[in-house]
Amino acid sequence: MEKQCGGQSIRFTNPPVILAGAAVVGPKEGEGPLAKYFDRISTDILFGQDSWEKAESEMVCQGIELAVQNAGLTMDQIRYILAGDLLNQGTGTTFGVRGLGRPFFGLFGACSTMGEAMSLGAILVDGGYGDYVVSAASSHFCGAEKTFRFPLELGTQRAPTSSWTVTGDGAVVLAKEGYGPRITAVTTGKIVDMGIKDVNNMGAAMAPAAADVMLAHFRDLGIKPDYYDQIVTGDLGHVGSSLLVQLMQGEGYDISANHTDCGIEIYDAEKQNTLAGGSGCGCSAVTFAGYLLYRLRKKEINRLLFIPTGALHSVVTSQQGETIPGMAHAVVVENL
Amino acid sequence: MEKQCGGQSIRFTNPPVILAGAAVVGPKEGEGPLAKYFDRISTDILFGQDSWEKAESEMVCQGIELAVQNAGLTMDQIRYILAGDLLNQGTGTTFGVRGLGRPFFGLFGACSTMGEAMSLGAILVDGGYGDYVVSAASSHFCGAEKTFRFPLELGTQRAPTSSWTVTGDGAVVLAKEGYGPRITAVTTGKIVDMGIKDVNNMGAAMAPAAADVMLAHFRDLGIKPDYYDQIVTGDLGHVGSSLLVQLMQGEGYDISANHTDCGIEIYDAEKQNTLAGGSGCGCSAVTFAGYLLYRLRKKEINRLLFIPTGALHSVVTSQQGETIPGMAHAVVVENL
Repeated sequence: MEKQCGGQSIRFTNPPVILAGAAVVGPKEGEGPLAKYFDRISTDILFGQDSWEKAESEMVCQGIELAVQNAGLTMDQIRYILAGDLLNQGTGTTFGVRGLGRPFFGLFGACSTMGEAMSLGAILVDGGYGDYVVSAASSHFCGAEKTFRFPLELGTQRAPTSSWTVTGDGAVVLAKEGYGPRITAVTTGKIVDMGIKDVNNMGAAMAPAAADVMLAHFRDLGIKPDYYDQIVTGDLGHVGSSLLVQLMQGEGYDISANHTDCGIEIYDAEKQNTLAGGSGCGCSAVTFAGYLLYRLRKKEINRLLFIPTGALHSVVTSQQGETIPGMAHAVVVENL
Repeated sequence: MEKQCGGQSIRFTNPPVILAGAAVVGPKEGEGPLAKYFDRISTDILFGQDSWEKAESEMVCQGIELAVQNAGLTMDQIRYILAGDLLNQGTGTTFGVRGLGRPFFGLFGACSTMGEAMSLGAILVDGGYGDYVVSAASSHFCGAEKTFRFPLELGTQRAPTSSWTVTGDGAVVLAKEGYGPRITAVTTGKIVDMGIKDVNNMGAAMAPAAADVMLAHFRDLGIKPDYYDQIVTGDLGHVGSSLLVQLMQGEGYDISANHTDCGIEIYDAEKQNTLAGGSGCGCSAVTFAGYLLYRLRKKEINRLLFIPTGALHSVVTSQQGETIPGMAHAVVVENL
């Protein structure tokens, strides 16, 4: 296949294989509907550490090590690690990757990070820059609450549109050759800001970015939504997902039949009281590395459009009255 | 030339041209020894905005727009923007790039970010994924002090080993074809942590990472320091630079004759009271995009080894007693 680089998209010449994945999650995710698809469920939300931040780094390290092990490789065979998280200065990732001794590219795309890591990872493998690359992303509920919202000890009431940050690290190993589903194309997102300021409604802030990259994707590749068995966005949750379906409808695309969202799938919103659904870099990362990768390998899905979504704000920008810019990256995974 | 991907390094098949650059800086940088090499010097450290964070975003936007203009291109010709900064959740970059409407990969490598952006940007162009790519990085003294140290209003005394965060955005346009120096090789760093905990001595925390990637670079490419006219590290400053020379001496490499550091070059430490020297993502970014690129184009330098260095910590990790992991990325720029 000829490499095509039209618009914002690339169709790969040598589509990288997703050799293996690993999803390491916390207790709440282990009580949700996707529990059986996760590789490791910690009953201890501190993962044996003495702070939320160190817990996240421990999770990052475990997730990447497990993915490499699941791929039947050793760490020294990994050419690059590409990863990121939500904490200030990406320290969840940095301190998790520190001991692994591999060349590292730190990323920040908020909750779209897994899409960014898989996009750049696939480019590195397709282009022949490395035989094996790890792409990963993580978040921790307690670390995110501390960073973005209120101290947990306050027991602050949550808005119905607010989401629940997933505690988890998802990692995949991309390879030049091997058996498994392949990343056949990617569409890189632009920042889209429709003026949403409500930090308790991330779904609304991110839905326009998801729509924007999806439209670019369909246009660049000349395909329609029904090409895909499933279109799975990152962490729009219930509120953002229904907005996305409406936005796409307005553009003449009906995605209602085959769209779902990692933030919807990962929790039982009613039983688990997760309101609008799951969020955080870890949400799409563990849903992909656990659940979606399993279904791809079982051929229950053969053509997947995976679109992690992110809200690129900080506490400081919101306090200064700024709006919340959204970002989304589209990754096509197919059984060829 | 055949692409070679040994160890941590890549020698490019189609070395990307650095078509143009732009350095937009604040008033203090405009009073320093490199003033005449900067494209734009703002006498207003707020860049017309009402917060340090918004000032940084304004600077990012100006830097990228100016680089594209200097390259004789329009923004819609740019395939990707790769950029990052020091602020929490990289908002200096996000809000600066928001209005530019181009596909965006957000990066975090602390003060090594310009090296990361140029490495990934060069890979994208070499691999044929885009004809024109912008790589950029920024920092703002006041925003960095607020984020990492003390409120400026306190007038806290500074340690002699402490550095001065550069207010500036540096951006370069990489292209498949054209006239200018080329990125011929890159070496991607690993995280190196030698146990330094003193947040007022970043030079010492980063020097081992610079040494590590430099050793990998010489080993992978089978060359010696004297291959280069200049070896320029990112922001080790006076303290970190002398440590680096010592560390390399211990490994059998003498870099004392041709090594300098962006953190040393950018200020007159004595006259400007900048203590150990300049730092921040902007330090290596503006020194490269302004001064070094000028000297490369004038053929005053024909073979440059450029190694931005970063300290991957946060206030939270330091408060939790963690050490400061270092990172560095090596980029070779040559007149072929």
